[in-house]
Amino acid sequence: MAARKVHGSPVSTATMRVTACLYEKQLEFEFVPVDMANQQHKKEPYLSLNPFGQVPAFEDGDLKLFESRAITNYIVHQYADQGTELISRDLKKMAITGVWLEVESQQHDPPASKLVWELGIKPLFGIPTDPKAVEENEAKLGAVLDIYEKRLSQSKYLAGDCFTLADLHHLPSLKYLMNSEAKKLYESRPHVSAWVADITARPAWSKALGK
Amino acid sequence: MAARKVHGSPVSTATMRVTACLYEKQLEFEFVPVDMANQQHKKEPYLSLNPFGQVPAFEDGDLKLFESRAITNYIVHQYADQGTELISRDLKKMAITGVWLEVESQQHDPPASKLVWELGIKPLFGIPTDPKAVEENEAKLGAVLDIYEKRLSQSKYLAGDCFTLADLHHLPSLKYLMNSEAKKLYESRPHVSAWVADITARPAWSKALGK
Repeated sequence: MAARKVHGSPVSTATMRVTACLYEKQLEFEFVPVDMANQQHKKEPYLSLNPFGQVPAFEDGDLKLFESRAITNYIVHQYADQGTELISRDLKKMAITGVWLEVESQQHDPPASKLVWELGIKPLFGIPTDPKAVEENEAKLGAVLDIYEKRLSQSKYLAGDCFTLADLHHLPSLKYLMNSEAKKLYESRPHVSAWVADITARPAWSKALGK
Repeated sequence: MAARKVHGSPVSTATMRVTACLYEKQLEFEFVPVDMANQQHKKEPYLSLNPFGQVPAFEDGDLKLFESRAITNYIVHQYADQGTELISRDLKKMAITGVWLEVESQQHDPPASKLVWELGIKPLFGIPTDPKAVEENEAKLGAVLDIYEKRLSQSKYLAGDCFTLADLHHLPSLKYLMNSEAKKLYESRPHVSAWVADITARPAWSKALGK
């Protein structure tokens, strides 16, 4: 039995955020599928892993964690010496990565996750898309990506010259959005487009997608 | 001139999150008011501190940061030896605090900040409150606080027996919500109510409020 377990769903962006991080760190883990169609995540024993009833949850020996961004943050610090560094040990460089981790969480993710729902998940389940929600969130995401475009004209990655956890956290939304009409938001901005091409081509991300 | 500067507004919850942290760490800083009424935060030179045009921004010598949660995270690591610890150096305990930091950001804050806007900020500017938004977000926040109630029946603070940055991050929303009809959501849950009374009584928080 592996010491590390990810409880989640392969279609969940938050689950993919954790598995992408584990592959970058070259850490073995057991994937424990959660049957979301049957509401397994809303019942015990899953609720004892995450009382909010969301995927993923993570175990590392006797340590139990939830919230994908808390899990990846633990992994990059606990396994600093393994695989891709993902966060600098220099506190000032770490702080810059911290800023862009929060930008992903507070600025990019709110419109991106709504668009993932409308354009990525709803079609999977045959639920009609809400055109007003798409329009509103495309406008919001576009405004965020204008700032990314400027940033990425100054440095190859969000936090500087190296790929970090801040870039990685965007990958799961991009999986859905780059296969939807929202890809125009990324492709129309040259530096953003080059960044997307670069980070989605990483071998660890292909592994997380099961390719 | 102080090495540390907080650019922000005293009514902004994100600004208070940073000043509360600085007072807990007993760190001196200069407060630089941003004239939000005149849109100073949407123009240069402020945009060079935070390209998203939001308060606060933070300077520590030549390091410039934005996003309140990234700023506090930097402060607790950079000044680990000063004032209240706020985050353990033990990586597993740090990870548990990390989970509850993300819970604040992803679960508590979305409904809480909408209620702060409806019940705290709108009345300050004479803008009518939207009763439907209040009802929806009170229901969402209540569901989150049910989980807090259970958690706080098991430990005094969110991440365990010690006050941490995860508790602190809630203080600015509580300032508004405990002075609004939404206080019933906290007061009706005994462990949540005791936790609110405890964390809002901290001397550093009084200082952040200018008391």
